[in-house]
Amino acid sequence: MQFPSDRIFVRLAVAADVPQLCGLLFILFAQEADFTPDLKRQALGLRLIIEQPSVGHIYCATDGDTIIGMVSILFTVSTAEGGRAAWLEDMVVHPGHRGQGIGERLLETVITEARSVDCRRITLLTDDTNTPAMLFYRRAGFALSQMIPLRLNL
Amino acid sequence: MQFPSDRIFVRLAVAADVPQLCGLLFILFAQEADFTPDLKRQALGLRLIIEQPSVGHIYCATDGDTIIGMVSILFTVSTAEGGRAAWLEDMVVHPGHRGQGIGERLLETVITEARSVDCRRITLLTDDTNTPAMLFYRRAGFALSQMIPLRLNL
Repeated sequence: MQFPSDRIFVRLAVAADVPQLCGLLFILFAQEADFTPDLKRQALGLRLIIEQPSVGHIYCATDGDTIIGMVSILFTVSTAEGGRAAWLEDMVVHPGHRGQGIGERLLETVITEARSVDCRRITLLTDDTNTPAMLFYRRAGFALSQMIPLRLNL
Repeated sequence: MQFPSDRIFVRLAVAADVPQLCGLLFILFAQEADFTPDLKRQALGLRLIIEQPSVGHIYCATDGDTIIGMVSILFTVSTAEGGRAAWLEDMVVHPGHRGQGIGERLLETVITEARSVDCRRITLLTDDTNTPAMLFYRRAGFALSQMIPLRLNL
């Protein structure tokens, strides 16, 4: 199979992409221990981000009209860094398109974007049992934190 | 010693509080493994939050003119929850005022605030060796996540 990188583009997601992005998030949340897929909630959250660029940006990787991967970057402020910082969330590549460098291209895109808007740091959460994800992020320079997350549902 | 709760108030922080808040963050970041105190950075980050209420809110506990505790709540959007979510950061009580319920009052304040602006979830990171912090948050209903944080400095 020919490496299809010349057909694959990474661009900002728009409102019309929401149904396809929901499909990708379904795959992601079915796999993550903390979350459960809920297409209505995913659509609401995606629209809130797409409609408010100050909250963050969603990027998608496309092959023709098909969205085969996505990632989001959400902006915040860090008192530790003394400036903007970012959370990386919702990184997922369709299982049929893994191993083709699409995740790397999505990750490069958000790192470039974070730098360009003067973010000092990117933080993400990944399942502590997801070794491929851990290796993927460590190859890109991410380092394990000594902190652990706690959550309160309201 | 009389329990001083009748003298202690919790209120939103303002720009004039930044020097005292920096003192509290110095204590926090000297203790957390991921961070290093840097008063200039802390002042910059605090000002960015105080000047932009859409980013988040900082609350402080005061005893007269002295700030003896603080906490911040930073707003984001969650595609898992389908709405607003919040990060709790920078929770610290001055060591001379611990064990008096001040942390609990700060935590109640940000939980009430998060609910009132329709946040569906609060997430925080704490050192995995900080057992008192873990117990404090678990008493308030927070549950351990199965995820781990990774960071990239830019």
